[in-house]
Amino acid sequence: MPLLNANALNALIEALRRLPGVGVKSASRMAFHLLQHDRQGAQLLAQALQQAATQVRHCSLCHTFTEDEVCATCRDPQRDRSKLCVVETPADQAAVERTAAFKGLYFVLMGKLSPLDGIGPKDIGLSKLFDRATDGVVQEVILATNFTAEGEATAHVIAEALKARGLKVTRLARGVPAGSELEYVDLGTIAHALVDRR
Amino acid sequence: MPLLNANALNALIEALRRLPGVGVKSASRMAFHLLQHDRQGAQLLAQALQQAATQVRHCSLCHTFTEDEVCATCRDPQRDRSKLCVVETPADQAAVERTAAFKGLYFVLMGKLSPLDGIGPKDIGLSKLFDRATDGVVQEVILATNFTAEGEATAHVIAEALKARGLKVTRLARGVPAGSELEYVDLGTIAHALVDRR
Repeated sequence: MPLLNANALNALIEALRRLPGVGVKSASRMAFHLLQHDRQGAQLLAQALQQAATQVRHCSLCHTFTEDEVCATCRDPQRDRSKLCVVETPADQAAVERTAAFKGLYFVLMGKLSPLDGIGPKDIGLSKLFDRATDGVVQEVILATNFTAEGEATAHVIAEALKARGLKVTRLARGVPAGSELEYVDLGTIAHALVDRR
Repeated sequence: MPLLNANALNALIEALRRLPGVGVKSASRMAFHLLQHDRQGAQLLAQALQQAATQVRHCSLCHTFTEDEVCATCRDPQRDRSKLCVVETPADQAAVERTAAFKGLYFVLMGKLSPLDGIGPKDIGLSKLFDRATDGVVQEVILATNFTAEGEATAHVIAEALKARGLKVTRLARGVPAGSELEYVDLGTIAHALVDRR
């Protein structure tokens, strides 16, 4: 559905389609909204994209997004350097961080193993994690990848490799979510909660 | 859910939230995707936004988006200047244009009357339409606003005003969509098709 008469508009629609989950209809609606109602927002978004694309890089220790060589969390002298929590994405890291229940450091995979999509150990930088975890300071690696098929497979591969290197490796507990009624919890979760009872 | 350690990333997420239909989760996913997998796309989108925001303006005749003073459709000497088709958006104009059943000119409202949202005749430039339609060349105004409550209200207001100025005003026919079976067509549509039978 090319809109008529404006090359810059068509180019904008094409560019917006590179965003995940945005098709041609959404892209048209976004472009129309920005041009008709929020040109300031369009300029602001252009600047933010430019800045992020040039300034954001990966922390040399934990691999998360940062603008510095080493991110603020890794630089924090208060954190317990003997514990390393492995998560899939910065959003997962933020979720763990919000609990305020973990004072160690992180390693952010920026992905997960997904053989069906051709994503293997090299694509998510597992060797970097192995170097990081075997620095002699880290005592325990806590695997906090998601509890999906890919996340579990990723956790399994990492656990095997790190145990072979003599590290203590733990996994987030599976169990019944806080606030839920057993009647409505799926059977797999209850089974895991039974096995992991304490 | 602010992501950790990167101001440029947080600024990008905030900027992406200005897009219609994009909340903080979608914005995070988009920012993450662009930075991790498609920095070239981020640069390209930044340029496209910048260009569109500075170059795209409204056609002085039909009010659609264009980069010129008068858009290509309005400049086309092949078009029938006695017919003016009123649509809500450039996307609607593109839909009518794709039928190849209309050879006249357009007027794009860039909105619709919506009193509940505080959008009155001035906000969608109706006086500009009235000037355009009463230039002495236009003989017939075809109302092709949407068949929604707001679109119908908009059509009604325009029809009343233009009839008072002595113009012929028509509305797109309501009826049974091509390819549909009567059994599955809503009753209002069938009733309209009966009244407008030919």
